[in-house]
Amino acid sequence: MRAAILSIGDELVTAGTIDSNSEWLAGQLASRAATTVQRRVVGDDRASIARAVRELADVCEALLITGGLGPTPDDLTRAALGDVLAPGRPLESDPVALQHLNRWFKNRPGEMPPSNLAQAQRPQGTRSVPNPLGTAMGIAGRLGECMIFAMPGPPHEMQTMFLDQVLPQLPLPDAGQVVLTAGVHAYGLGESMAAERLGPITARDSCPLVGITVSESIVTARIQAKGPLPKAQRELENAASVIMRQWRPYAFGRDDDSLSSAVGSLLRESDRTLATAESCTGGLLGKMLVDIAGSSAYYVGGWVTYTDALKTSCLGVPQQVLQEHGAVSEPAVCVMAEGALARSGADYSLAITGIAGPDGGSTPKPLGTVYVGLGQSRGAHVIVSIRRFEFPGDRSAIRDRAAKTALQMLRFVLLDSPASTALLWEVSASVDC
Amino acid sequence: MRAAILSIGDELVTAGTIDSNSEWLAGQLASRAATTVQRRVVGDDRASIARAVRELADVCEALLITGGLGPTPDDLTRAALGDVLAPGRPLESDPVALQHLNRWFKNRPGEMPPSNLAQAQRPQGTRSVPNPLGTAMGIAGRLGECMIFAMPGPPHEMQTMFLDQVLPQLPLPDAGQVVLTAGVHAYGLGESMAAERLGPITARDSCPLVGITVSESIVTARIQAKGPLPKAQRELENAASVIMRQWRPYAFGRDDDSLSSAVGSLLRESDRTLATAESCTGGLLGKMLVDIAGSSAYYVGGWVTYTDALKTSCLGVPQQVLQEHGAVSEPAVCVMAEGALARSGADYSLAITGIAGPDGGSTPKPLGTVYVGLGQSRGAHVIVSIRRFEFPGDRSAIRDRAAKTALQMLRFVLLDSPASTALLWEVSASVDC
Repeated sequence: MRAAILSIGDELVTAGTIDSNSEWLAGQLASRAATTVQRRVVGDDRASIARAVRELADVCEALLITGGLGPTPDDLTRAALGDVLAPGRPLESDPVALQHLNRWFKNRPGEMPPSNLAQAQRPQGTRSVPNPLGTAMGIAGRLGECMIFAMPGPPHEMQTMFLDQVLPQLPLPDAGQVVLTAGVHAYGLGESMAAERLGPITARDSCPLVGITVSESIVTARIQAKGPLPKAQRELENAASVIMRQWRPYAFGRDDDSLSSAVGSLLRESDRTLATAESCTGGLLGKMLVDIAGSSAYYVGGWVTYTDALKTSCLGVPQQVLQEHGAVSEPAVCVMAEGALARSGADYSLAITGIAGPDGGSTPKPLGTVYVGLGQSRGAHVIVSIRRFEFPGDRSAIRDRAAKTALQMLRFVLLDSPASTALLWEVSASVDC
Repeated sequence: MRAAILSIGDELVTAGTIDSNSEWLAGQLASRAATTVQRRVVGDDRASIARAVRELADVCEALLITGGLGPTPDDLTRAALGDVLAPGRPLESDPVALQHLNRWFKNRPGEMPPSNLAQAQRPQGTRSVPNPLGTAMGIAGRLGECMIFAMPGPPHEMQTMFLDQVLPQLPLPDAGQVVLTAGVHAYGLGESMAAERLGPITARDSCPLVGITVSESIVTARIQAKGPLPKAQRELENAASVIMRQWRPYAFGRDDDSLSSAVGSLLRESDRTLATAESCTGGLLGKMLVDIAGSSAYYVGGWVTYTDALKTSCLGVPQQVLQEHGAVSEPAVCVMAEGALARSGADYSLAITGIAGPDGGSTPKPLGTVYVGLGQSRGAHVIVSIRRFEFPGDRSAIRDRAAKTALQMLRFVLLDSPASTALLWEVSASVDC
């Protein structure tokens, strides 16, 4: 079934009020294997509403409308539906709806305000849909091949009406049919590279359907599988496995997984610990690690050495290194990673120093230049691998990418991925110090 | 000016992904007295996109489109715009866009993936809109009386393109009538207390209109003033001043101000420095401070002493204190704050230790128990003030409230507010150690 959702209200079309009804209805439809082809919001304008109803009825089999059924002059859904469903003919009063209104006001103080009488009206040829929770009755009608349901705006009234009255009338696919969704997340490869690795899986007519999105530098493959439950489940899992494999080693998890939860699981499994030494990220990397409940099992803590003085006093970065190479340099990040290992006793350390801006960039080290050092304690030995990046974006994006990149570098090591595995935005090959 | 907003993406039309671009654009338009007549979301379907463009261009003077400009097969905005703006004619490559792509990939490892070349294409008769932050160029065209702008989906790319490239071209209304908005932010008092302090200012028919919202524990008064520019401006500023005064000392700023920017300005003005010592917040407090550009002028850095061992080795918390009182205790936070001062040489220190959950709560120290210590270096003396809180919410909310509370405590001291100033969720009076 193809459905469309139309939300009506001046407050929804301008900013500040989230159209939660539309979101809820889309979720209800998706979980029942119906396809939402369009979501639309128009203001309290009779002609706009009528036009929207006409256009939407033309592209779907079920049109779900919310809002504009109240008693005030800016409630125009009834009149607009009349313009479309019974043009030129006046609205008529629904006797059942009138009875409901009379009962509603009977046990309440005061008389029914005359304006509420309008709520019993509906276009000729339509039906009234009961609303046990309020005065705004719904309206059910049909235009061509499209069933139309107008429901009230208050969420609890709308939801009850939809579940009890509307849903049973929708021409939904066989109840055996479900729609399952999953996301596979990757970091450190570009969107186009990610798409090329998946190849024909992402074709628009493939089954299950796979689309690629990017949010906060995380590339996500969204999988949608339809059909009878066991088949859809199998297809979903197959597609997820294939994508995880094609995106190896960049894919770090599914759905609610994050880079820090993925790294946390690997550290926990291998019984290893981690310390951090941050400059430009200012604590963001530690924050991401501590976002995960139970992180105290593997994250010991770290240093935010934002000034040169703290880099020297806390982590032992020699003043000579700072003077000759600067705080954003290979030698500096190397000592930061070593110092964090030595002073914490952890098995791994991640050190970050860079230029997050808005000032501080130069020709040899432009804005976005970040060194990430990964320290490993191997018995009496310490190995530090360093990679240099130039992250695009503003201060916030550069720091976010630096912290995520550090986590992915550690993840690669924990998985024994080749040291040569490329990472997005890297500008020089990895070196050991 | 009548505007319409079209968002494109399968993930937006089905449930689960909020269409934040549309919300942001509607806000931008509203603040410039432009009317949004419709907001529409369609999936990644070429015919649906083309139809939406045609229908919307018919009802507005400016159509703002976001999404579908990436390099993957489900990015169909370019093709659909071609169907509408140059039907039957192939897309053409834009030389400036090609140059941008070549430059973009030049300093990055590997070749440009062939799929990215599609991003330089646009319908004949349209113009390319530069995107300094990504590979997805925008497209500007016209259909009848309607200006059309297609912008990329990633919010920071879209917002920059809208503000720098699109906005200056829009036929905005006469500057004579404007809608001005401002927000006044406060932290540490409850919403109902905040409302009571404002009194009749928040009545629905007051002018300017003032509403109170709460987001991430920040209480905000949103002011909206309409009319000719000087009058609206005057009303807005008057209302903001009154609210700042009524909410003293909790109100910390307006619009884009944050607690960390407010604290940063005060530290900078008084030429003082700050160090941090974090346990349960894991670096979040440092991250908030470093969010502010130029924070190196007053934030020296700090410690993330997540384990007991690091509390002892880095900050000198005696093992006896940890054994007798625990890491979440008044004596522990006191030494953390002292240690951070002594080891950094900063003028102020903020120390946080608490139980963020989901486990670890007990009857004497329930989940959400957090001690915040504020250290002040006064010549040879060190003063540490400690407050104890029980923050409601989950792991993430508790840590966010702990970091914000620490910033507000420091702000009160920098403003010489009475030490007795109440703070939301405090469970015992402040003590000095």
